[in-house]
Amino acid sequence: MSSNPLVKPNLFTRSLHPENQETPISFIHSESLSNKLFFRRNHFTYPLFTSYPYWLPISGLVPTTKIFSLQDIQKLPSKTLKLVLECAGNKRALFEPKTFGEQWEKGAISQGIWKGVPLRTLLELTGVSDDATEVVIEGYDYGVRKDLDSIHTFARSLPLKKAFHPDTLIAYEYNHQPIPFKHGFPLRLIVPQWYAMASVKWISQIRLVKEKFEGPFQSIDYVYYPNKENNKDATPVTTIQVNSTIQKPLDMDTLNTGMHKIKGIAWTGQGHITKVEVSVDNGNTWEEAMVTPETTQRSGYQWCPWTFDWFASKKGEYTILSKATDSTGRTQPKKNPWNRKGYGYNAIDQIKIKIE
Amino acid sequence: MSSNPLVKPNLFTRSLHPENQETPISFIHSESLSNKLFFRRNHFTYPLFTSYPYWLPISGLVPTTKIFSLQDIQKLPSKTLKLVLECAGNKRALFEPKTFGEQWEKGAISQGIWKGVPLRTLLELTGVSDDATEVVIEGYDYGVRKDLDSIHTFARSLPLKKAFHPDTLIAYEYNHQPIPFKHGFPLRLIVPQWYAMASVKWISQIRLVKEKFEGPFQSIDYVYYPNKENNKDATPVTTIQVNSTIQKPLDMDTLNTGMHKIKGIAWTGQGHITKVEVSVDNGNTWEEAMVTPETTQRSGYQWCPWTFDWFASKKGEYTILSKATDSTGRTQPKKNPWNRKGYGYNAIDQIKIKIE
Repeated sequence: MSSNPLVKPNLFTRSLHPENQETPISFIHSESLSNKLFFRRNHFTYPLFTSYPYWLPISGLVPTTKIFSLQDIQKLPSKTLKLVLECAGNKRALFEPKTFGEQWEKGAISQGIWKGVPLRTLLELTGVSDDATEVVIEGYDYGVRKDLDSIHTFARSLPLKKAFHPDTLIAYEYNHQPIPFKHGFPLRLIVPQWYAMASVKWISQIRLVKEKFEGPFQSIDYVYYPNKENNKDATPVTTIQVNSTIQKPLDMDTLNTGMHKIKGIAWTGQGHITKVEVSVDNGNTWEEAMVTPETTQRSGYQWCPWTFDWFASKKGEYTILSKATDSTGRTQPKKNPWNRKGYGYNAIDQIKIKIE
Repeated sequence: MSSNPLVKPNLFTRSLHPENQETPISFIHSESLSNKLFFRRNHFTYPLFTSYPYWLPISGLVPTTKIFSLQDIQKLPSKTLKLVLECAGNKRALFEPKTFGEQWEKGAISQGIWKGVPLRTLLELTGVSDDATEVVIEGYDYGVRKDLDSIHTFARSLPLKKAFHPDTLIAYEYNHQPIPFKHGFPLRLIVPQWYAMASVKWISQIRLVKEKFEGPFQSIDYVYYPNKENNKDATPVTTIQVNSTIQKPLDMDTLNTGMHKIKGIAWTGQGHITKVEVSVDNGNTWEEAMVTPETTQRSGYQWCPWTFDWFASKKGEYTILSKATDSTGRTQPKKNPWNRKGYGYNAIDQIKIKIE
């Protein structure tokens, strides 16, 4: 059925200026999403490049500013990783009460294969002064922030430890092709296990700094604010929460009695998935879903597809839940703690169906 | 901005088997939607045609069965109408409590230009027996109904009066081209002012009958059931309700202080739109939106684009409402009466935004 060439899913349009489009996650059965189905999340309109050839400067607290050409970077030893990128606002539409921002449902997440050179390699070739504490990665995208009424470039910092992690990449290929323009051509930072705001697109420059970087995309946005009216107890958004999504059946669908294969994905930004449990009675009882052994042995960077065979013998309405647990013991909460900007939603996933 | 060739909206995928895809109505500024953006609503997988050339038989309570070729039909005097087609389940996702079925948001509606021959012309050429009371229009699409565990063809009837309405068409063109396959090629019934389930696609045959037609797509589906547990007070779904949709701003968006153009569409299946009112304070006060005089003079078949200039001087959260009224005095209710299958939602439209 899914190979019927007549019907195919599209990205869901959340906004066009800037472009924000959501992966139709219920209809994805692939391990590596094509450019066409990879969610698009932008803070500004797409940047216009005017300077070719492309050069990447690394400056700031370094012995001498170093400028790499794309060819220099591509000649260095590379690393290839298949991983999940998840927007910190994925599932924002599920918060109660609702929070402002793009109303992402369950598809601000995708998976694919990224190839690049570890950022660490470039930092080692450049040299890093002893007093540097953070690496600031800046993109070519910029525009007006409504809250500040001023123009800002998208930029984020990484602490040295994360910047030197051997899997933090300056990527130049996606799924064995140059990175598609909308996903950061020619160079994109890839930070496995962190929400995708960290994976800066269209890198324009890298700077080593001493003070904590306070750009608005980490001092205002991408911060968990537990309170509606003040910024007390604010904490930065970094590591992906343990999470799962039911892909099939669809929410509010009607099915026949008989055998049904419930299916979905589970993922985490810490360790790896150890268990996915499913409830077909709204949480009264739970059973383990089948996760293929091959996928549990994977690095924690990928999502684990899971299935659960359910024999629906009795007509009626059912609330079906899925709950993932990772190797650090983290598990999905029943209700998500609310935060003002709607980040990191990972409550137990839920759909409702009718058997008739 | 909207002409930026880099970004464009897509249909939202609600399901693939059968294919149900929603028009991205917030991003539509056109009077006639292209095939690519026209919502797709199917009960079954797409039909496979095996018989060419195409013939349309009209049989049942007629003097003699008559068979029209496509060429015969195209030679008859034609009529061209620009009109709204709205799925009866449009806005189903807004019902509280939720109802089963495709979770359409606000985009199971589109508008375009249909050309065809009035059904009336074909019926007059064939002749109709005195005892005929209904015209049954059958499509080529068929499949298993889960509730009945048996195979059915999509078919609907029209009372003679509606069938003989001069604007009820057997259409063969959409936007000056042959009807796209997914929208009913080669022939589609077009019933202006009724919800779109009446506009049968891929017409295979037409029959005149005496008894009330009881096919499941009008005896089970497309019926308003006000009660959850029984079928008391059931009434058929026919005429489109008076309705409006706010297209801009987007729900849960954040805007600056200053001037904003709120915009949307309003439509009705009875008479024509006479007034659209907007409230920016959750219904405490209302003001009239601007509807261009040209559009109020239109037939009631088209939607009326409307705009409302709002000077947002104070920061804060706002609930914005729109309410349309038609020339028969119908207006949108504050809360929609619930019905089990989730049809005909037309409560006052609502979005929430933040001014910062």
